Amino acid sequence: MAEDKNALFPIGEKAPADYFVGKVMVKNLVPADDILNTVIGNVVFEAGARNNWHRHPGGQILIATAGTGYYQEKGKPVHLLHKGDVVSILPDIVHWHGASRDSAFTHIAINPNTQKGVVEWLERVTDEEYLGAYP
Amino acid sequence: MAEDKNALFPIGEKAPADYFVGKVMVKNLVPADDILNTVIGNVVFEAGARNNWHRHPGGQILIATAGTGYYQEKGKPVHLLHKGDVVSILPDIVHWHGASRDSAFTHIAINPNTQKGVVEWLERVTDEEYLGAYP
Repeated sequence: MAEDKNALFPIGEKAPADYFVGKVMVKNLVPADDILNTVIGNVVFEAGARNNWHRHPGGQILIATAGTGYYQEKGKPVHLLHKGDVVSILPDIVHWHGASRDSAFTHIAINPNTQKGVVEWLERVTDEEYLGAYP
Repeated sequence: MAEDKNALFPIGEKAPADYFVGKVMVKNLVPADDILNTVIGNVVFEAGARNNWHRHPGGQILIATAGTGYYQEKGKPVHLLHKGDVVSILPDIVHWHGASRDSAFTHIAINPNTQKGVVEWLERVTDEEYLGAYP
């Protein structure tokens, strides 16, 4: 994945394969603490890449900044995400996000209320789930 | 202030003159609630524009996305901000932010822990303070 010269942030480090499918790069922007209670990272997914199903005890906010992405809550239709889209995810809602099949995708991930926990990772989003997510 | 076609977000509404000097536009991205406890807005300052001195009971995080800005905590030197810079501001630290003298400036403003309050506005940043802020 070539570094985008127009990107807001440096590309960061490869996300752990245990929790992601495909190549995903994460740049930490705000680390965990017990004062701001907010962890923020910039995430770049190559086309086809996504995270596992997961939930956040304190909720999450995604800000899409480049490319085309998918966002899906368990049992609901997938949503397409484009630059400037903002998704507010309530606590404990099981969901996944990632790039579309044909385009890379970048979002800022804001995890508030980290005194309640940051993330609980669940099962992988299978190819069948991913390819069936968007008609 | 012409709308920037490369901007991440729509330009929003004019910020209240009681708390800002110069032309400042705010687009609300995440409204106040008692679940995510996080208010997020995109703020565009024209050159020379800035907010009043203020403090956040729950702290604040700024993500600079375009232009050149200033950030100053009371009694400390001003910091220049450029695209990709992230500023973590601790609760109750008195500070101001805005554009530089010669360039507009855009940042995303993230206000976490809003169960403690969002903002307490204080006095204006005078022209003397502003013009003296950066040598």
